[in-house]
Amino acid sequence: MNADLDALIARISPLDAGSQVAARERQHILTKPRGALGRLEDISVWLAGVQGTVLPQIRLPTVIICAADHGVTAEGVSAYPSAVTPAMVQNFLAGGAAMNVIAKVVGAQVKVLDVGVATDLLPHPDLIAAKVRFGTRNMRNQTAITRDETIEAILAGANAAQTAIAQGSNLLVAGDMGIGNTTAASALTMWYAKTTLEQSVGRGTGIDNPTLDQKRLVVQESILRANLNSFRDPLTGLSELGGLEIAAMTGIMLQGAASRVAVLVDGFIAGAAALVACAIAPLAKEYLCATHVSVEPGHIAQLEFLQLEPLFNLGMRLGEGTGAALAIPMLEAAARTLSEMATFESASVPDR
Amino acid sequence: MNADLDALIARISPLDAGSQVAARERQHILTKPRGALGRLEDISVWLAGVQGTVLPQIRLPTVIICAADHGVTAEGVSAYPSAVTPAMVQNFLAGGAAMNVIAKVVGAQVKVLDVGVATDLLPHPDLIAAKVRFGTRNMRNQTAITRDETIEAILAGANAAQTAIAQGSNLLVAGDMGIGNTTAASALTMWYAKTTLEQSVGRGTGIDNPTLDQKRLVVQESILRANLNSFRDPLTGLSELGGLEIAAMTGIMLQGAASRVAVLVDGFIAGAAALVACAIAPLAKEYLCATHVSVEPGHIAQLEFLQLEPLFNLGMRLGEGTGAALAIPMLEAAARTLSEMATFESASVPDR
Repeated sequence: MNADLDALIARISPLDAGSQVAARERQHILTKPRGALGRLEDISVWLAGVQGTVLPQIRLPTVIICAADHGVTAEGVSAYPSAVTPAMVQNFLAGGAAMNVIAKVVGAQVKVLDVGVATDLLPHPDLIAAKVRFGTRNMRNQTAITRDETIEAILAGANAAQTAIAQGSNLLVAGDMGIGNTTAASALTMWYAKTTLEQSVGRGTGIDNPTLDQKRLVVQESILRANLNSFRDPLTGLSELGGLEIAAMTGIMLQGAASRVAVLVDGFIAGAAALVACAIAPLAKEYLCATHVSVEPGHIAQLEFLQLEPLFNLGMRLGEGTGAALAIPMLEAAARTLSEMATFESASVPDR
Repeated sequence: MNADLDALIARISPLDAGSQVAARERQHILTKPRGALGRLEDISVWLAGVQGTVLPQIRLPTVIICAADHGVTAEGVSAYPSAVTPAMVQNFLAGGAAMNVIAKVVGAQVKVLDVGVATDLLPHPDLIAAKVRFGTRNMRNQTAITRDETIEAILAGANAAQTAIAQGSNLLVAGDMGIGNTTAASALTMWYAKTTLEQSVGRGTGIDNPTLDQKRLVVQESILRANLNSFRDPLTGLSELGGLEIAAMTGIMLQGAASRVAVLVDGFIAGAAALVACAIAPLAKEYLCATHVSVEPGHIAQLEFLQLEPLFNLGMRLGEGTGAALAIPMLEAAARTLSEMATFESASVPDR
């Protein structure tokens, strides 16, 4: 598709089966009944496979909030104006958003990646400036982003992830900010997971019934228009429907997989990016961990399509990476119980 | 029942409705769509009611692992010998158990309360020595603990909680350690939640089918024997069936409620203590937050009886407080998003 993107995909290899076997065996000698930590044990074994070691660690969890605007907001599909996108970017940079507060609780750093906010943004130490264009085109009428723009946004996400990994991070969350992005994500879910319109379109930030009808119509028409394009490869849906932040999130997921770094999947927007990432590189799925279940109906359809099992359902629907970040302590507990618990032998505890 | 216990119960009052209303209103002006944080918002409002302030905080989360032995282990109901109870107490004090590791991840302190371990234990700074007796009597044949012993164990738990609260803690987890305690908890669940034998008895630490049959028989016979006793008040079931650690956990829950401190309910053993606490003082329920769903089948029945909605299901069945402790970051995220997020006005974010 593109030399850099092809090289990134080529670096993705399967999990390390040997480390997984060794981690499972180690779980059996720790001071607890076999299997008593449930999914924490499964997660620890998965992390062992991801990191290629029997004693995985979580270091410097990083949330990269990918921000961009959507031309389809011209169709009246959202409860909020596009001006909220740059305002929320400023809120992230000032530390006032939910994602900032949750990051402090779970010990994560937050970066903001601008790949397509529709206004100019002032420089900031936590803002990665990689604007591809000022928002996508309106997917109802035209291709949302060209293939070159799509690849540029994917690589911007991959580069941001690579920078965090180079700083020492080995746990990534792809967060999102972009008014209109549940509309694009709904269309992407239909495209990549073959869901119905009813399964795919929800109330986003909280739209009323007439707006929901309009959103369904716009998604349906966008899919019909996009299907007229003849060329087909895994990038086609993303290019036709957008958005730039979803492309960047896709890049974060691909880079995580290529670098043997775990990536936590947040809600509906992250789920759309996961669909695209796994369409481009099916092995990328092995490096993804589903976290929460969003209220957005298409999220469950995404997870079922990808056969990813979420960890909890708190009725959240905010995005930004907030739901995924809440899972970070669970991942850390999984890694550290495997690594740090005493064994029956070391603690002189009688086994059964 | 007892002057000290009566005084403790008399101090329990309803949640502060005014703070709850104010917290819900504050949620509506924070920079997110209304309700987008889902249950985190509900938890924040609950914490406001518990603490009597619109800006609740989580300070010094404390896990008190209540440890005791069970005479009913003589009936061959467990996969592990009773010697595991004191060995695991040493493991907790040495920092090698799952609960210790998870506590480090979530920023909690761990104390161990001995109310009935069947061996002498050496002093340790984190061990609260309040042994009532060397394990319960065998509930199949006789009253497990006298009423005086029951009250003594409840008050030992309440005192341990009060000490933690005096040190600045305002979030408590009642943890458990006691080989045989799922057998006692099964009987308590039948007694207090009126469940069937099938609903109440599970595999505990992982018993085989013949042992499960034996466990069901022992629980059934214990209930039948206990029912012959004529005197009935909320302490009767706990006294007849034990155990001492479950009584202490009951005391922690009552003290939390009396001190307007939130208490997280862990799995099946903590659920049994919650049933007892709410039978003794129904208002105590308002200060309880269910966390995870245990594999033990009776746990769901307990939560349904108490009408408590858990936060997640990770297939855990370890006890010690481990599942509840994993919820601490969620509680902290709930409190801090309410307190620390920017408002639409302060961040100049356009509202809908």
